[in-house]
Amino acid sequence: MIKVGILGASGYAGGELLRLCAAHSAFTPILLFGDSQAGEAVAAAHPHLALAYPGVRFERYAPERLAEIDLLFACMPHGESQKIAPDILARGVPFVDLGADFRLDDAATFARWYGEAHEQPDLLAEFVYGLPEIARDRIRGAKLVAAPGCYPTSAILALKPLVDAGLIEKTGIIVDAASGVTGAGRAAKAGTHFCTVDESLAAYGLIDHRHTAEMEMGTGGEVLFTPHLAPMNRGILATCYANAARDMDAGAPLDTLKAAYEGEPFVHVSGALPATKWTLGSNAVHLTARYDPRTRRVVAIAALDNLVKGAAGQMIQCANLMLGLDETEGLARIGVYP
Amino acid sequence: MIKVGILGASGYAGGELLRLCAAHSAFTPILLFGDSQAGEAVAAAHPHLALAYPGVRFERYAPERLAEIDLLFACMPHGESQKIAPDILARGVPFVDLGADFRLDDAATFARWYGEAHEQPDLLAEFVYGLPEIARDRIRGAKLVAAPGCYPTSAILALKPLVDAGLIEKTGIIVDAASGVTGAGRAAKAGTHFCTVDESLAAYGLIDHRHTAEMEMGTGGEVLFTPHLAPMNRGILATCYANAARDMDAGAPLDTLKAAYEGEPFVHVSGALPATKWTLGSNAVHLTARYDPRTRRVVAIAALDNLVKGAAGQMIQCANLMLGLDETEGLARIGVYP
Amino acid sequence: MIKVGILGASGYAGGELLRLCAAHSAFTPILLFGDSQAGEAVAAAHPHLALAYPGVRFERYAPERLAEIDLLFACMPHGESQKIAPDILARGVPFVDLGADFRLDDAATFARWYGEAHEQPDLLAEFVYGLPEIARDRIRGAKLVAAPGCYPTSAILALKPLVDAGLIEKTGIIVDAASGVTGAGRAAKAGTHFCTVDESLAAYGLIDHRHTAEMEMGTGGEVLFTPHLAPMNRGILATCYANAARDMDAGAPLDTLKAAYEGEPFVHVSGALPATKWTLGSNAVHLTARYDPRTRRVVAIAALDNLVKGAAGQMIQCANLMLGLDETEGLARIGVYP
Amino acid sequence: MIKVGILGASGYAGGELLRLCAAHSAFTPILLFGDSQAGEAVAAAHPHLALAYPGVRFERYAPERLAEIDLLFACMPHGESQKIAPDILARGVPFVDLGADFRLDDAATFARWYGEAHEQPDLLAEFVYGLPEIARDRIRGAKLVAAPGCYPTSAILALKPLVDAGLIEKTGIIVDAASGVTGAGRAAKAGTHFCTVDESLAAYGLIDHRHTAEMEMGTGGEVLFTPHLAPMNRGILATCYANAARDMDAGAPLDTLKAAYEGEPFVHVSGALPATKWTLGSNAVHLTARYDPRTRRVVAIAALDNLVKGAAGQMIQCANLMLGLDETEGLARIGVYP
Repeated sequence: MIKVGILGASGYAGGELLRLCAAHSAFTPILLFGDSQAGEAVAAAHPHLALAYPGVRFERYAPERLAEIDLLFACMPHGESQKIAPDILARGVPFVDLGADFRLDDAATFARWYGEAHEQPDLLAEFVYGLPEIARDRIRGAKLVAAPGCYPTSAILALKPLVDAGLIEKTGIIVDAASGVTGAGRAAKAGTHFCTVDESLAAYGLIDHRHTAEMEMGTGGEVLFTPHLAPMNRGILATCYANAARDMDAGAPLDTLKAAYEGEPFVHVSGALPATKWTLGSNAVHLTARYDPRTRRVVAIAALDNLVKGAAGQMIQCANLMLGLDETEGLARIGVYP
Repeated sequence: MIKVGILGASGYAGGELLRLCAAHSAFTPILLFGDSQAGEAVAAAHPHLALAYPGVRFERYAPERLAEIDLLFACMPHGESQKIAPDILARGVPFVDLGADFRLDDAATFARWYGEAHEQPDLLAEFVYGLPEIARDRIRGAKLVAAPGCYPTSAILALKPLVDAGLIEKTGIIVDAASGVTGAGRAAKAGTHFCTVDESLAAYGLIDHRHTAEMEMGTGGEVLFTPHLAPMNRGILATCYANAARDMDAGAPLDTLKAAYEGEPFVHVSGALPATKWTLGSNAVHLTARYDPRTRRVVAIAALDNLVKGAAGQMIQCANLMLGLDETEGLARIGVYP
Repeated sequence: MIKVGILGASGYAGGELLRLCAAHSAFTPILLFGDSQAGEAVAAAHPHLALAYPGVRFERYAPERLAEIDLLFACMPHGESQKIAPDILARGVPFVDLGADFRLDDAATFARWYGEAHEQPDLLAEFVYGLPEIARDRIRGAKLVAAPGCYPTSAILALKPLVDAGLIEKTGIIVDAASGVTGAGRAAKAGTHFCTVDESLAAYGLIDHRHTAEMEMGTGGEVLFTPHLAPMNRGILATCYANAARDMDAGAPLDTLKAAYEGEPFVHVSGALPATKWTLGSNAVHLTARYDPRTRRVVAIAALDNLVKGAAGQMIQCANLMLGLDETEGLARIGVYP
Repeated sequence: MIKVGILGASGYAGGELLRLCAAHSAFTPILLFGDSQAGEAVAAAHPHLALAYPGVRFERYAPERLAEIDLLFACMPHGESQKIAPDILARGVPFVDLGADFRLDDAATFARWYGEAHEQPDLLAEFVYGLPEIARDRIRGAKLVAAPGCYPTSAILALKPLVDAGLIEKTGIIVDAASGVTGAGRAAKAGTHFCTVDESLAAYGLIDHRHTAEMEMGTGGEVLFTPHLAPMNRGILATCYANAARDMDAGAPLDTLKAAYEGEPFVHVSGALPATKWTLGSNAVHLTARYDPRTRRVVAIAALDNLVKGAAGQMIQCANLMLGLDETEGLARIGVYP
């Protein structure tokens, strides 16, 4: 049994970690930190978990409690991890952070996109960017992992092999993506009210969404990113456009993705246009790509579940690698469909 | 490894059996019968299964193929199981049927509600009604099990303990329930078109829905049943009304349900009003009940996933019992939420 | 031009009044009261109204402003109308109130269901219950009208003619109904978050929902009422059950409803099972009913748009009658479908 | 009274024409052609229309019946209008066609994108492309109008003023758009089954969707177009990307759109990011645009209701112009929200 602590356990990503841990042969959540819910039963925040975590309650975080656990997950708003990272490092507990604080390589880029100075710039280099399909070897054995954002996971997986193979130009990349409403978090706001979102589609964060920085870091390209909110619980669909770097067959981008992800347990590459629904509750990513000789553009599309491969599932996948377990332990490759 | 065959593998319940078997330590689907899809890859009908069943194809059914398997599941329209049941009995393969053919106790009731004579009336007594919480001992070791319908599962679990405890009268029961659209099956019809169903709620099958017969058999009462179609993929919510048989505390029905299902792995009884969403993808049933002294009525409510506890999950649960496995093997108690 | 003031103009019912007034030949909203939004443009709260009310802003309510208008609509939480009713009476401005304060006949019933004493018990008799199909003559020429709740509108229209014709017993009525999420109001709460509601169905307000009192007043019967929240923006479907008072043909309840509502501009009675979707944005009610000789029950079903016939549309219909206009002015009989 | 005939009256666009005509002071549908529904009541196909068109039935089309009407609308699959256009021209009845047959300027482009030769190439020049905001003067008084596709309406309105003003380059335009499911038509198919679409987002028609040709004709640019299917009944959101033709202020594209559409009754231009939901049931288009100096791209976004401004509403708007009526007659500028 590996004793797990979760910071931010009362949110959507926290709930998803609890769901996934319940099916994991080793990870056993024993400390659930959720300051505003402290004292409440897990089932109050996560009614679906009533049968799996009877009697478990949220607690207030305190650094000394890190001594009780073997692994720490954090799902907190950006800015929070910076505050507690020194404690975590001091105690040496393996740590997977879903926050944005330690994803970027350098503090200047963080300051530019997040509009505030990084409080722990020296620690940025300590964290590995936790995208296993890209950085498996670095994650294996790492102590500190910053799990990618949901949008960057989809865009980087769709685009990076095409950049690396020289099929597309690094400038002029466009990522047009949409997310289900869980991506907006659990807070009840006008923008997450059922009646605002249901039967509607709209863009948000036009031109300056913070995930742009991660996409540029992960692909090595210049990216214009437009997120949209779609009337569904989960799922990200990223439709990515790039200028072709050279002539190629219409099928060349697809072949490149197939070769890049051969043997990957959670990546499915096919000529079919992927639907987010295929991935519900699973750690799978479905990818496709095609070249349009008429406009000399490459289109690459990724579909995933933003709370699993885009959040909690990827955190588990990273933790499995960090602790030397089977990378796929506790993670479904099959979505709940329909 | 227990070799599994599935009749009707290309439908929604069939796909759900395949999803659940992929997480089951022993059940391995090796023969997928789907006559109209014969020759096609599993992923053509079930794109979410691409990563779990690469290369597997649907086949045409032939009785001699029963020799290749250790367990047979069938998810076919009513009337189909009657035709092949003699073959299955002759070969002795354990069989869990989701069809309506062998659920009822007697042929006359079948004829009355289904509007046609039963072709194999002598076989009705051979099948056990597969509701483990009610008939666990009979299912254990049975060779032939008829899995209940989705609506009856919810209504019987909510009502039977109240009848048995003498809290409610057997006459005058009303079951007002709603189902997600998967309950209407995979066939593309005007009534399952997204634009017919989305943002809408309507009753169907008023007064004479066939599941009434099962509810009456399972509860021992007289039931008026009104099903509705709700704009969601999955889920059944059954709100059941009954005349109180005697004075009681407002909490007596809830206490009775709690006592009846204590220790049940998949039944959660609580004072909270259950939402179908808590059960998505899981084999869980959430129940509540209350007595209204003003109108002298008992209200009992059940929520479940019609494709899991209402179909494929219950089939797996029955098969686990039939074959002497852990009853919960391969089945989640936690839904995918939100 | 009839100058209209709206209290609570920033909520959903207020926005719907603005939409309907924009299509009305006489009603012109000139004062929009919304204290918490005072100073903001209409389009900030109601982006869909941008093209119809450019430059109009919400204002703070003050009694002296009643002198500027010919008609007042109020869409406020219960309790608010009691406070300002004396002012309104003093000034004599025709008033249609959607709040619950003046719907019930007597203060004792109000106190019982709302858990607090009525502050203006003497005024209860001054208000007419604004259900035109039941009380058209009293509404015509009235100065003070309390518009019914959305659930009571559906249940009373479905049941009252059956009670009046002696087809059903007054005791033992059950109203099992579901509403779209607009019925829960505009406030962002955990219970109205998209991810709580979408793909889910659940009951709420079990046994003691306040609308029960209105249903009992309007039908003259004893009612057990169970509301549910359905994953859709708008719509109420009420499935009503009653004990038959005598033997009858299966079609007798339908014939009774047809006779009762012959010539009604907004009521459609048919053998078809109505869907809420047929009514979106319109003031229509679709009704059906049937007798089940087996269980000796009558089932009657109503579908309507909770924000139109269940709120703003009915308010306009009442105001048309009060001011001597064509009752149908400004109101669609056709929903936006699909 | 202007007597209206509708070809394809049983489909979604046909039903929407009937809804809009019911609110139109002059257009009175008297002949509803729907060959496969001939003999059926309107309410069988369009239950929401029961109160407005009681007793009206669909009929079989016959050319001689054109003599009975003053105006003809057609909503048929592409290819159908080519067959009957000569009859219509011969009789001289004003005709608004929603089919794709007569939208494009030249037969070669039609053949390239539709994969078949045009049967009436000589008639292409007879039809005016019915986008009033672009070609109002040509529509006024025209006898033959080809109403634009839903996607092209959104993309052309968002992009054309930017091209005309020299803000964006004509090459390298990308239109990434999503439509509600009504856009896929009324036919029940696997792809329109509720359970395929609900809670899902996917692209379709990658690279070679036929509406590309219309967008290129309407904008004068080279367009790569990717449509997506979104889980909602109605609505198109088009997010359009173009290379900036020169340096400009971030707000220059928005100012250009505002100037271009000043005084337009149905176009709303604002800095707010538009949601499709604002437009439900209305003929409105909401537009925004911005320049990103970092990537030197202009992003322009359009939201509309595909069945109104994208189909039936635009047809009415064109017919109003053709017959010299008020252009806005019968058309709402306000959506039904929420």
